[in-house]
Amino acid sequence: MKKTIALGILALSLAGTASAQVKPEDQIKYRQAGYSFMAWNMGKIKANVEGEYNAQQVQAAANAIAAIAGSGMGALYGPGTDKAVGDRKTRVKPEFFQNMEDVGKLATDFNAAAANLAKVAATGDKAAVQKAFGETGATCKACHDKYRAD
Amino acid sequence: MKKTIALGILALSLAGTASAQVKPEDQIKYRQAGYSFMAWNMGKIKANVEGEYNAQQVQAAANAIAAIAGSGMGALYGPGTDKAVGDRKTRVKPEFFQNMEDVGKLATDFNAAAANLAKVAATGDKAAVQKAFGETGATCKACHDKYRAD
Repeated sequence: MKKTIALGILALSLAGTASAQVKPEDQIKYRQAGYSFMAWNMGKIKANVEGEYNAQQVQAAANAIAAIAGSGMGALYGPGTDKAVGDRKTRVKPEFFQNMEDVGKLATDFNAAAANLAKVAATGDKAAVQKAFGETGATCKACHDKYRAD
Repeated sequence: MKKTIALGILALSLAGTASAQVKPEDQIKYRQAGYSFMAWNMGKIKANVEGEYNAQQVQAAANAIAAIAGSGMGALYGPGTDKAVGDRKTRVKPEFFQNMEDVGKLATDFNAAAANLAKVAATGDKAAVQKAFGETGATCKACHDKYRAD
């Protein structure tokens, strides 16, 4: 448990080192871009597991989700990104910034589920992908339910 | 050359099959999200090759770029996405849709450069990453110069 939390915090802080200074409004823009692009790819996987299955498409989509999840998005929640900056709105709740241990754990769960989804997608096994996809979606929802406003 | 073009068109059309129907305004939103998230990761790699080098951060960033590049973004240039849809603006030029063979070639070049960048980043060799990073940036610019309005 301790190790899981430590890994989560590491994942969240990874991109902080040696990173170009990114303005708060751009941090919000980039994190929203990451979630938006993952949503498109989740939608593609959903369509595949519910219909005709294209293993190559699912694998490419899962790779994108896993790589975005593993890219150190925690660095995009820096100071000044807890509320709208000019026209750049955010749905993140203040509680997010007050519970970084819990957020770190949720981030670790998400990273692990996304990495597993990519691994399973590489096998082309539709049923296994459906299971891993559901598990990944659950880790998204766990964070949204707690830390994202409607 | 013929093969390169065919591969490019394949890459552009890959995500079209079995995909959920995505509205034109959402296609524009998702493709902009992909480019935006890649830009953040390109910025991180740039900061690393110009300063203190964090191999793990560069590898994660390069993986994100390569996976997004390989996710079949061609499907996000469907009918009705050649100009603004409501509030959703786009900088794509009409010429993009009139030169799909050339676009396919540029997309193939970009995918190959991004995949190579990820491969090189895994070695942790800063000088080699700098070269591969420059080559990737050049393939971005090649398309922007021709098909993106200022």
